[in-house]
Amino acid sequence: MKTTGYAAHSHDTPLVPYEYNCRQLREDDVAIEILYSGVCHSDLHTVKNDWGWTLYPSVPGHEIVGRVIAVGAKVTGYNKGDHVAVGCMVDSCQQCSQCHAGEEQFCEHGFTQTYNSPDPHTKEITKGGYAKNIVVREEFVLAVPAALDLAKTAPLLCAGITTYSPLRTWNVGPGSHVAVIGMGGLGHMAVKLAVAMGAHVTVVSRSAHKKADAEALGADAFLLSNDEHSMEQAASTFDLIVDTVPVKHDVTPYVPLLKIDGTLTLVGQVGPMAEMNTVPLVMGRRRIAASLIGGIAETQEMLDFCARMNILPEVEMITMEQINEAFERLERADVHYRFVIDMQKSTF
Amino acid sequence: MKTTGYAAHSHDTPLVPYEYNCRQLREDDVAIEILYSGVCHSDLHTVKNDWGWTLYPSVPGHEIVGRVIAVGAKVTGYNKGDHVAVGCMVDSCQQCSQCHAGEEQFCEHGFTQTYNSPDPHTKEITKGGYAKNIVVREEFVLAVPAALDLAKTAPLLCAGITTYSPLRTWNVGPGSHVAVIGMGGLGHMAVKLAVAMGAHVTVVSRSAHKKADAEALGADAFLLSNDEHSMEQAASTFDLIVDTVPVKHDVTPYVPLLKIDGTLTLVGQVGPMAEMNTVPLVMGRRRIAASLIGGIAETQEMLDFCARMNILPEVEMITMEQINEAFERLERADVHYRFVIDMQKSTF
Repeated sequence: MKTTGYAAHSHDTPLVPYEYNCRQLREDDVAIEILYSGVCHSDLHTVKNDWGWTLYPSVPGHEIVGRVIAVGAKVTGYNKGDHVAVGCMVDSCQQCSQCHAGEEQFCEHGFTQTYNSPDPHTKEITKGGYAKNIVVREEFVLAVPAALDLAKTAPLLCAGITTYSPLRTWNVGPGSHVAVIGMGGLGHMAVKLAVAMGAHVTVVSRSAHKKADAEALGADAFLLSNDEHSMEQAASTFDLIVDTVPVKHDVTPYVPLLKIDGTLTLVGQVGPMAEMNTVPLVMGRRRIAASLIGGIAETQEMLDFCARMNILPEVEMITMEQINEAFERLERADVHYRFVIDMQKSTF
Repeated sequence: MKTTGYAAHSHDTPLVPYEYNCRQLREDDVAIEILYSGVCHSDLHTVKNDWGWTLYPSVPGHEIVGRVIAVGAKVTGYNKGDHVAVGCMVDSCQQCSQCHAGEEQFCEHGFTQTYNSPDPHTKEITKGGYAKNIVVREEFVLAVPAALDLAKTAPLLCAGITTYSPLRTWNVGPGSHVAVIGMGGLGHMAVKLAVAMGAHVTVVSRSAHKKADAEALGADAFLLSNDEHSMEQAASTFDLIVDTVPVKHDVTPYVPLLKIDGTLTLVGQVGPMAEMNTVPLVMGRRRIAASLIGGIAETQEMLDFCARMNILPEVEMITMEQINEAFERLERADVHYRFVIDMQKSTF
């Protein structure tokens, strides 16, 4: 099936329209007409080859919501016309202990990324959600609950699951005290999800003007990280800190905020971590961890939870033609809180 | 009560005999004649003021085994003549949630260190085990089980509990796969204790010649950390890594050895930690933690466990007069695996 997307052809050229073929429908495949595609910071990192592994032409996008337009002969879970979603993964071995445990993100043979991975069948490089169509193996297609607003659902597929999964891993619920650092696409979802789970949620920020935003998202408290007195007052009060800061930074000032045995989990940063001091780790048996998206079953659970609790991201709708401008704004963190491309309003 | 110890009077002078008064026996105090005192790397750090908080004259030593010579009127647990031990703590508030939980090492008001802390009663600086006597509040005195060889017991009070506690925190037992990095005083105890708990234990070292030592201590396997192939083969195989390296180092090469959700716990290093890469944390939801000695109840449990399982450190006996030479050897890691000062054979 021919389709059109927006692709980067090198690290320093803008995204431009690009025609290519989706994988021919296999018996266990679902063909999707993409309706909405979220814009994740990873898309920008990939396009600019920040991680050094980009394969051009690159069609990014791993927060995908669409409509089923065809299904393979052995597909049992989806029918033409269903509203479905695709996140960061489109395949895995399905045989290893991690896949069996529903943790395909830790597949022992490596999962296939929605874009920028070799397709295990065709060996072509996968192409993502900045396009009109995608063909995905049934096991990696999610059902979008009817209660969710389709236009706002896309960011749940990466920003949502990336923050939902660690909240579940570290057993957040009523009585938990959770801090969220960084108020971008991930951070604002962490706040909404942790509040919906019943936790007492504090936003930690260097910028006093973020306080109103934090309250608007439902946070119970705001902690100014450059106010030494407030930071001391807040020492040893959090069970979990969700650190969504996407760049290299020093976590040392935040670790003392954790209770004994508390965990700071990194979800935004990939790569070198600034030198830290172990004293606050030692003095409270505290932990630094990281988390990677979530498994397919957990992603479906998250979508169902968001539908039930009426949780959706704050989005700014754009058209495909506006993507290069949106990338520029994303680079200076000028978005509240996630861009979503409306494919039907796009004219490419 | 007058006593004599060995004290450092500055960061660059040798330890010399030093007379001082122990705290006058209070109603809940136990007065101890010290028989054996272990030599911990922290003693050397303190004497040299490596951490910047040393109060001179400094009498170090927090691995103490002795005999009760007097008890206060309200002491119920000990009698004159009992063999007892004292570790790194000699007091805490006994009121906070951590003290109530038996985690005095995390006392919300800070615990009193066996040496180099203000005594909560006299405000004088506490003096440790490199001495003939010590007076300690009953709650911080441990009973030495009869089965333990007194001369070898002292190092259990710091090296023993520091490695026993994280093995318990992270639920090590039959079926666990544990790696130990660093084969000094802490590392060799971690190996012995983890083996005794039923785990499969691997020593990780840069030095091939440590293999025989590892086997002699009961380790099941040896992993050469500068052999890239072996390190790759060992990826994702450990539930827990006990990292006993006492100096700044990069943990990045070790993190991939952990299973999904596995933990590397630092027990030897205090201070700045080298820049690390978060990729192996992210790609396996792995964790970096630290641990600090253990509570008093857990320390007693450890002594009882060692008596039951016949676990004792490998020690080299010295006299008090040899301490400066022993420090020099400790500095170049020339000890298998812990010096113990025999006070009765000392002539000071």
